[in-house]
Amino acid sequence: MNEFALIRRYFQRDCADPAVLLGVGDDCALLKLPADEILLVSTDLLVAGRHFPMDTAPFDIGHKALAVNLSDLAAMGARPLGVTLGLALPKADADWLAGFAEGFHALAAECGVCLVGGDTVASPQLTIAVTVLGAGQAGRILRRDAAKPGDLIAVTGTLGDAGLGLRAVMTPERVPAVLPRDELDFLVARLNRPSPRLAEGQRLSVFAHAAIDISDGLVQDLTHILDASGVGAEIDATRIPLSAAARNWLQADPTLDTLPLTAGDDYELLFTLDPAHWDQVDFPATVIGSIRAEPGLVIRDAAGNPLTLSQGGFDHFAGPTA
Amino acid sequence: MNEFALIRRYFQRDCADPAVLLGVGDDCALLKLPADEILLVSTDLLVAGRHFPMDTAPFDIGHKALAVNLSDLAAMGARPLGVTLGLALPKADADWLAGFAEGFHALAAECGVCLVGGDTVASPQLTIAVTVLGAGQAGRILRRDAAKPGDLIAVTGTLGDAGLGLRAVMTPERVPAVLPRDELDFLVARLNRPSPRLAEGQRLSVFAHAAIDISDGLVQDLTHILDASGVGAEIDATRIPLSAAARNWLQADPTLDTLPLTAGDDYELLFTLDPAHWDQVDFPATVIGSIRAEPGLVIRDAAGNPLTLSQGGFDHFAGPTA
Repeated sequence: MNEFALIRRYFQRDCADPAVLLGVGDDCALLKLPADEILLVSTDLLVAGRHFPMDTAPFDIGHKALAVNLSDLAAMGARPLGVTLGLALPKADADWLAGFAEGFHALAAECGVCLVGGDTVASPQLTIAVTVLGAGQAGRILRRDAAKPGDLIAVTGTLGDAGLGLRAVMTPERVPAVLPRDELDFLVARLNRPSPRLAEGQRLSVFAHAAIDISDGLVQDLTHILDASGVGAEIDATRIPLSAAARNWLQADPTLDTLPLTAGDDYELLFTLDPAHWDQVDFPATVIGSIRAEPGLVIRDAAGNPLTLSQGGFDHFAGPTA
Repeated sequence: MNEFALIRRYFQRDCADPAVLLGVGDDCALLKLPADEILLVSTDLLVAGRHFPMDTAPFDIGHKALAVNLSDLAAMGARPLGVTLGLALPKADADWLAGFAEGFHALAAECGVCLVGGDTVASPQLTIAVTVLGAGQAGRILRRDAAKPGDLIAVTGTLGDAGLGLRAVMTPERVPAVLPRDELDFLVARLNRPSPRLAEGQRLSVFAHAAIDISDGLVQDLTHILDASGVGAEIDATRIPLSAAARNWLQADPTLDTLPLTAGDDYELLFTLDPAHWDQVDFPATVIGSIRAEPGLVIRDAAGNPLTLSQGGFDHFAGPTA
């Protein structure tokens, strides 16, 4: 099957969105942006074996490739307008493509966004390039540089699930035996099928200050906000929200207790807001700390002692430090 | 050097475009689209060894990756608004990155477009994903489905140069000895540094009907227009515009005389227009045929006989056919 037939078969679907004036099939797609809205754009590349395990189900790869990009729109409080897909494929395997397209389109439909264009090429290395376009109101875009001293720091959902899910897939022999099958499945699903927090982001755009999606881990992503905003923060490691499955795993293997600070791929939103607006947060979210004027990030453990970053994660100090 | 340092060093440049509200460095870039304009978007993937020879100079790869995408905007008569770059790299080689970024940014500056976002990842296979955003006036977008019977078919520039340039690079031993060095250099430059015909496309958007950029070869790309418009065409192979270098090569090796019909990568514009508007074409372009209501594509040789497509190209018939 040649490139054009491939595209038609798996990726050219009817799009009911009136904002899409022309979808897949010409040199460019044509879209209409409401006159009072700002355009947002973000591109992510996913490489097999690096961004997802090689043997990940094609449905899940399709879901995740779109989800991680929509998550960038969610992090700025925008709504999706359209998406393009570049697919570099070792071979045109019909089963693989059908599964991938199903996962991609299922999430697209759930989020009300159409695939409007793209490119399919042959390559020894499976690589997926997704670009999302979004729209948002001027003055209501959540940026990384808008955190203010005194802001609360909060996160949606739970952290560390995807990181544990990855361990479950890559080193199944190291999963504690006490962990029930359904909890393992939950963690792997969190890795493979992240939910872009679009509704939460759009809600937050009304009153929150800064936001980012947690793709590289809480500490790294929070540091992006601190650097961009020229502020510091203190967070309480004991307040990091954990799922029941993550809590059970970390109880069975305490050496992993700082994993939720550094593990990526959860695609939850990390946001800052004036404490006066906390009662407007009408979805599951947890306050984990606060922004302060003094630069630097201090993370406190259960005893109130600061943790320090070492090779591969955070260590608890034996005692209090200056 | 980590991903963030890489991005800053080579890809984060000042952007003077007032339409770019926020460039590289947040979850998404923010752009302003004029209220009366339509948004265009196109994504292309380039894979090393497939879309360009492995040992192509990094400057040229940077140029070409952007050029082929801007060419999609040119083909619809739009102006560029912003561009994102996804780069999957075997290793972070400073010389390679500096050259690539130089080629990319030089063309971006020439075309008045800023790099507004992207992603850099490690991968065994060098892969480049570029997404261009553009803007155009409603009713003045050149689409593939707008060709009308009676239209002239014309092309900008000359055809076959890039195809011959690729032969010069891949099989230098088969280049006719009579070909001077500067003509060879010209052909290779046409392969490696195509010029997106943005000014021509924007001019054509005022009066032309259908257009496409010639990336896959004249016959294949014209066929896209014919299929989308539900029409046929007749073209005169002897009217296909050739550069002096291409003409010399084809004279020295007549077995290649139909190459300009099928060779891709020239990124010239193929367009159709009412003959009454031909005098408005104020840039180098050549009429090569006309659109007719009857489906199918007829290509006539110097004797007026139809050519037929065979494995690997077109053949001249020995005599006239029905």
